[in-house]
Amino acid sequence: MKRGPEKQFDPEVALERAMEVFWARGYEAASLSELLAAMGIGKKSLYDTFGNKRSLFLKCLEHYAASSLACLESRLCSEDGKAVLPKIRTLLEEWRKASACSGSKGCMLGNNIADFDTSDPEIAGILQRHLETIEDAFAKALDAAQARGETKLPDSPRNVARAFVCLGQGAALISRVTDCGKATDGAIRAAAKGLMPGR
Amino acid sequence: MKRGPEKQFDPEVALERAMEVFWARGYEAASLSELLAAMGIGKKSLYDTFGNKRSLFLKCLEHYAASSLACLESRLCSEDGKAVLPKIRTLLEEWRKASACSGSKGCMLGNNIADFDTSDPEIAGILQRHLETIEDAFAKALDAAQARGETKLPDSPRNVARAFVCLGQGAALISRVTDCGKATDGAIRAAAKGLMPGR
Repeated sequence: MKRGPEKQFDPEVALERAMEVFWARGYEAASLSELLAAMGIGKKSLYDTFGNKRSLFLKCLEHYAASSLACLESRLCSEDGKAVLPKIRTLLEEWRKASACSGSKGCMLGNNIADFDTSDPEIAGILQRHLETIEDAFAKALDAAQARGETKLPDSPRNVARAFVCLGQGAALISRVTDCGKATDGAIRAAAKGLMPGR
Repeated sequence: MKRGPEKQFDPEVALERAMEVFWARGYEAASLSELLAAMGIGKKSLYDTFGNKRSLFLKCLEHYAASSLACLESRLCSEDGKAVLPKIRTLLEEWRKASACSGSKGCMLGNNIADFDTSDPEIAGILQRHLETIEDAFAKALDAAQARGETKLPDSPRNVARAFVCLGQGAALISRVTDCGKATDGAIRAAAKGLMPGR
């Protein structure tokens, strides 16, 4: 029996759409039928291209890291001779705006940390590496800002970077239930002032 | 037909155990059979005393708030004439230790914010009120500390309080995937130094 041609689809587009579903709903709550509907593909194509739900999720996490996190270092740490503090402030401002949106989805990493049975060492490891990527970019930028005399940090660049990562994760999380954005807005303003005071 | 006597159980103990399950597993992932096993009761007792899974969960959230959050204000804001900053620092130290534990459960509020379909307005409202309770206690204590000349805050007491709430939620979240506690440890140290500098 001759089979018809396989349905054509763009794996990257499908992955992007699956990522949106996992991001909004979390791993557990995202059902296979929801994923397939969003991706616009059938079960067979899913299994052939992405494996099962778990491996699809892992691919989505990697995709999120590649698209959302990879540009962070180049943005914060590009050696263009320009002041570093404004670069960090611009990024925080974006976080502030994102978390002030009503019905914010939060951060895909953070959502899945909370959602997940973190006894899964492979997924915990991926989430941890992603958090370290953000931390490293901040630490490098804060170190440079201090070396340039733009600020006097209250603690080591590494610890201040860690505070910003915690704060960003907390703000993204809280933005999911607050409707006015005042809480996360004020939090990020206060942290920017206290953790990297301008000179 | 005569029915045997109803099995006796302490509703408060059962609620406490259900809370532990929801806390560790999240609302979606916690199955009815897991809940019943932990609570040591049958389905009928569950429905008679606590209603369905959703209403049991709401009661657990209220119980968590009553036990973990209610004492916060009295600890931070008791008017005993003693310095306020050490009280806040002691609390942050406890957060730091809790989030440095390997395999920390995180914060029940935070976990459920991330886990939940936050389109449920009743639950989103409860979570938001609980976060505000924490924020209010911090704001009051920080205001008092500044009025007593113990610190000069980098922003309003309200905004600094918001930063601590975000930071606490972020630390509790991140502690679920990091195994060494260094990240949350450093974050809380840096925030304590930068957000409420001692005089």
